[in-house]
Amino acid sequence: MGNSRSNLHHCKFEVPEIIFGRGLLSQIGSCARRLGGHKVFLVSDQGLVNAGWVDKALKHLIDAGLEVIFYNNITSNPKDVEVESGAIEYIRHGADVIVGLGGGSSLDAAKGIAILVSNGGRIRDFEGHDKIVRPLPPLVLCPTTCGTGSDVSQFAVINDTENKCKLTIMSRCVAPDISLTDPDTLETLPDEFVCTTSTDALSHALEAFFSVASTSLTDVHAIKALRLISASLVPAVKERHPDDLENLARASLHAGMAFSNSLLGIVHALAHPIGGLYDANHGGINAVLLPEVLRYDLPVVAEKLPDLAWGFGHRVDGNSGAISEVVQETLDTMLDAAGAPRSLKSLGVRREDLPELAQRALKDVCILTSPRQANAQELLTILERAY
Amino acid sequence: MGNSRSNLHHCKFEVPEIIFGRGLLSQIGSCARRLGGHKVFLVSDQGLVNAGWVDKALKHLIDAGLEVIFYNNITSNPKDVEVESGAIEYIRHGADVIVGLGGGSSLDAAKGIAILVSNGGRIRDFEGHDKIVRPLPPLVLCPTTCGTGSDVSQFAVINDTENKCKLTIMSRCVAPDISLTDPDTLETLPDEFVCTTSTDALSHALEAFFSVASTSLTDVHAIKALRLISASLVPAVKERHPDDLENLARASLHAGMAFSNSLLGIVHALAHPIGGLYDANHGGINAVLLPEVLRYDLPVVAEKLPDLAWGFGHRVDGNSGAISEVVQETLDTMLDAAGAPRSLKSLGVRREDLPELAQRALKDVCILTSPRQANAQELLTILERAY
Repeated sequence: MGNSRSNLHHCKFEVPEIIFGRGLLSQIGSCARRLGGHKVFLVSDQGLVNAGWVDKALKHLIDAGLEVIFYNNITSNPKDVEVESGAIEYIRHGADVIVGLGGGSSLDAAKGIAILVSNGGRIRDFEGHDKIVRPLPPLVLCPTTCGTGSDVSQFAVINDTENKCKLTIMSRCVAPDISLTDPDTLETLPDEFVCTTSTDALSHALEAFFSVASTSLTDVHAIKALRLISASLVPAVKERHPDDLENLARASLHAGMAFSNSLLGIVHALAHPIGGLYDANHGGINAVLLPEVLRYDLPVVAEKLPDLAWGFGHRVDGNSGAISEVVQETLDTMLDAAGAPRSLKSLGVRREDLPELAQRALKDVCILTSPRQANAQELLTILERAY
Repeated sequence: MGNSRSNLHHCKFEVPEIIFGRGLLSQIGSCARRLGGHKVFLVSDQGLVNAGWVDKALKHLIDAGLEVIFYNNITSNPKDVEVESGAIEYIRHGADVIVGLGGGSSLDAAKGIAILVSNGGRIRDFEGHDKIVRPLPPLVLCPTTCGTGSDVSQFAVINDTENKCKLTIMSRCVAPDISLTDPDTLETLPDEFVCTTSTDALSHALEAFFSVASTSLTDVHAIKALRLISASLVPAVKERHPDDLENLARASLHAGMAFSNSLLGIVHALAHPIGGLYDANHGGINAVLLPEVLRYDLPVVAEKLPDLAWGFGHRVDGNSGAISEVVQETLDTMLDAAGAPRSLKSLGVRREDLPELAQRALKDVCILTSPRQANAQELLTILERAY
């Protein structure tokens, strides 16, 4: 991998088995059984307990003849210590399959636990590319937000609480065996998270589409995600019609299939250190950064602009400048109408930390596939404009 | 599965690991090794020996430290007896991984051999849905035509020589572990096969797009395949520019990902009995049937027409009738310009067999996902119009 288009026509594409549809949480038990499991380690969070989805999942797992250990010691931006204590519990109970149910935090935590139970050590030992040596236990991931993509991706992101940074773990091993989405679970997701998890998926789609590692196999999914989000984000937040919520869940899936295989760019390279330092909402950070990174990237992706405009629901003819302007206006209007956060300041970021954040982003793996090679000064300018 | 749209929003999507790019036949050895293989059973045909690709594949396999058994007792529309004798050879030599290199015939034969070596019995025992009980040996499939899709699909089609019919085997088990496409292998494919294997891929794309089991996950790939074929079929046949050939190989891959997950329709339901009875070229049969089946299907897929027109390279506004007309004209023009066969008669089909072919098509699994439930008389009308 590198910042060049030399191997543009070489594709690698890998996605887990995908099951998607309203009411299909009922299949969670048959999925875990089919992978050979008898004792399930179910990883979820208190929000999903309160909303009743954990009880439903438990019932389906038990109905399928499975024993279940429930683990919900998970917070947003999941922490190394939570993952490490989860692994100890898994081993203590002799579980043999992991099921993650929740947003990106629960799913990444489930992945982290899976890594540790078969590989041992501390989670930070696995930071970077392909550090996992032993196969993971069977893994079923069920997303319950409109974002993440963790349920199909080859990534896990865990917070290192000592160094206050995010550890990005990248390996084909961390893609689950099965991604199971039941869009009905979005019914109980608060409006704020409908918005910010969708802006996470939106940034996955746009960064995957612009990535130097993008291919026709990833582009079709990125553009489909963009079309679905353009059509349904604002109505989903305002009216919460099940069809719009389903479109957003579907968009998250398409965007995940795209970025897992094409990787990301500057939005995520900056969002990771910000999330590590402030424990702020990942999708909210992305919503703030996306318009500025888009403005920075657009001049170098001219050949992709017609498809991009189409993804945003426009049929635009004309020069690149005109299309770029329409695209930027559409994004701004959509983020405003959806009530997304629009400044780093509003997320609690301190202005004096911006230079350090720019420096840390230069070391993030996501920067490698950015269509423009940004230096620290350019990253700082993006952060300042987004402040 | 059934002929209804009741579970339209339930998706299942599964594809193997995909590797695609010029020159990547060089990875054939590392793929087989990565799956744990030591002794490769290489299934290919005499055409690829003559074109030099088998020698190249052998070199890459041996360079990766693998032993190789070469099996090329394969003809087009691969026969039960060829598959059964292949399985005996595999076991006799103690091979532990199967690599298929070729068109649909070699790849389906490799799948058939894989089924028999781990499940025993005759190949006809596995006709239908999910009849395979034991896991297959590791399987790498490398397509060398612009059609088939066997390298990603959950199907294998083998000729039953006693009953002169095609056996369709459908199971997630028959999807390979890795699909590896090197578009350079198309350089030596005769013009006739560039055309007919592309029309096979074209029918995969269109039937997948119209299928009652289609979803957003399959539609994006179907439409991408259609766009690539629309742009590159005629220039690839006439000028053989490597970029156009690569587009066709890529189209085949996208179409395969679509139809493997959405299944097919009347074109294939009719093509299977025709191929079984006459040993005629599968892609050629599809080219002849496609315009007639399209005409039959178009009235019931109105909501899909704008995307369909876009796939054919048009931006059409207007009513369904107008779009349908443009689409049909474009298809006819493209097939003529590419030199595709245009009548069943020219393929050696006897007029007196048409009623029997219509009857047999009613029993083919592909008919179940057709957007229109055709009866024998309607199928006969399609055959007569295509005669």
